[in-house]
Amino acid sequence: MGAGEFDLIARIRARVATRADVVLGIGDDAALLAPPPGRQLVVTADTLNDGVHFPRGTSPADIGWKALAVNLSDLASMGAEPAWCTLSLSLPQSDPAWIEGFLDGFLALAGQHGIALVGGDTTRGPLSISVTAMGLVEPGQALRRDGARVGDEVWVTGTLGDAAGGLALLDREPVPALRARLDRPTPRVAAGRALAGIATACVDVSDGLLADLGHIASRSRVAAQVEVDALPMSETLRAAFDAATRTALQASGGDDYELCFTAPLEARAGIDAVSTQLGLRITRIGRITAGEGVHPVDAQSQPWSSRRRGYDHFAEH
Amino acid sequence: MGAGEFDLIARIRARVATRADVVLGIGDDAALLAPPPGRQLVVTADTLNDGVHFPRGTSPADIGWKALAVNLSDLASMGAEPAWCTLSLSLPQSDPAWIEGFLDGFLALAGQHGIALVGGDTTRGPLSISVTAMGLVEPGQALRRDGARVGDEVWVTGTLGDAAGGLALLDREPVPALRARLDRPTPRVAAGRALAGIATACVDVSDGLLADLGHIASRSRVAAQVEVDALPMSETLRAAFDAATRTALQASGGDDYELCFTAPLEARAGIDAVSTQLGLRITRIGRITAGEGVHPVDAQSQPWSSRRRGYDHFAEH
Repeated sequence: MGAGEFDLIARIRARVATRADVVLGIGDDAALLAPPPGRQLVVTADTLNDGVHFPRGTSPADIGWKALAVNLSDLASMGAEPAWCTLSLSLPQSDPAWIEGFLDGFLALAGQHGIALVGGDTTRGPLSISVTAMGLVEPGQALRRDGARVGDEVWVTGTLGDAAGGLALLDREPVPALRARLDRPTPRVAAGRALAGIATACVDVSDGLLADLGHIASRSRVAAQVEVDALPMSETLRAAFDAATRTALQASGGDDYELCFTAPLEARAGIDAVSTQLGLRITRIGRITAGEGVHPVDAQSQPWSSRRRGYDHFAEH
Repeated sequence: MGAGEFDLIARIRARVATRADVVLGIGDDAALLAPPPGRQLVVTADTLNDGVHFPRGTSPADIGWKALAVNLSDLASMGAEPAWCTLSLSLPQSDPAWIEGFLDGFLALAGQHGIALVGGDTTRGPLSISVTAMGLVEPGQALRRDGARVGDEVWVTGTLGDAAGGLALLDREPVPALRARLDRPTPRVAAGRALAGIATACVDVSDGLLADLGHIASRSRVAAQVEVDALPMSETLRAAFDAATRTALQASGGDDYELCFTAPLEARAGIDAVSTQLGLRITRIGRITAGEGVHPVDAQSQPWSSRRRGYDHFAEH
């Protein structure tokens, strides 16, 4: 068979870690799993395509990391504990070195979060990676988009705009710290777990803060006011761009994979405790009001406008 | 946003059926599911790429059907009951008519099997469809590849070679009945469920009988003898090809999505009962012996050889 599909699968199988609840992993028609009793299952699927979701020339290890990271980020935003995943990998041709590099990144992140790769397929086609991730959550504890209430405050983890800044500088003057945020996003799994029971609604920032917060607003049938000058910024971003560009990147840039969530005022102490415990900056950036839509305001409480509020994979820009 | 990603998702969401165990379906960062207590979870993922897994020009409805069918077939081969699935759809451009056609086929088959589409994503890229399907099975009842025992007989459902025959005639003299087997395969879900507790090992015929039976042989550490003249044949295939070509199509053609399984002699009556109950032909085609590999023999018990035993997505042909 040469370096055919079955060899590829054997190569992957030889490298994956397992878990006690994986009855049967890679190598049969399907995986067989034993979910723990009394937990709910959280399932998400995200695809990365060459040149769309990562710049052409991104290293295989970074692609592998990011393919899993974007899915772990969805589990994080639900407050779920990662458990299992599948991987569908389309490659133009068999390329053992590429596969090994891809697995380096994918499995390094999988190991950090104890998620087991249990199945999938490898096919011939333009480079594309589809991952489905499964996690577990206690019944009633999942963080949804539809739980924001009038009077809640809006919060975000980490800093915003770094990944979009890295992308903007890609062909001009690459900044390694920003490029790392683009290529190796950190899914906020521990934060999502800690915020279950504290946050009223949560979303991960994949398409841009204003766009993603818009999902909370529409699903919760409320409005969100966002103070754009309160958006958390890294020193690297501050040094690399002028003020107007920075703010646009923070408000509308995609690929940060931070968590944006809402919580009542009385949750402030709990959120501070999570921040301290995880060593993770968590910043209050706005509040939930009656109405609809997301309303960015500047330091003078005047409306702030951006032509481009978020990344729409099919919109004409 | 025009006909952007969020509209596509809304379009899909408006059409999907749900189930009582879907706590939260399409529209959040992830789906939230409540697995029934005491069941094991069966998970499989398969991708279809344009021009690789279906001929260019295949109708969107047929592509939708097949994308789900190949995954349901994997659940069937495990003896699992279909429950939920995710869909990752990459399209070169937004195309509402294409999406509606795709959903016609996908959801028609989903409805037949009571499987709920609970999440996924739509992205820009070359046409590619990745589906992850989840099913449920009683602990210990899953049909695996590694359970075949020396002395078992080898069986197959339905007829073989029709899909490969349809593909072979595609550009010459299309035969609708064969083309239908290629475009709209029938996943043998009810047969898989009925065979749980009867069969000792099972695989679905996606890459070709000899190749797929080879997985049972290698995982079970046994050999399989297959009487090529006993392979079940449709009258349509008989009429369309000469004897040598027919046999090659039956033994090595892919895309039939029948179930090939092993069972002890004493299971014959039970298999007959399943066949009668389901109105589905089930044919004894060989036996399991000590050794390794799959050994096709002709009517004179002489070795039968084929240069191409199955479809390897990366091999050079």
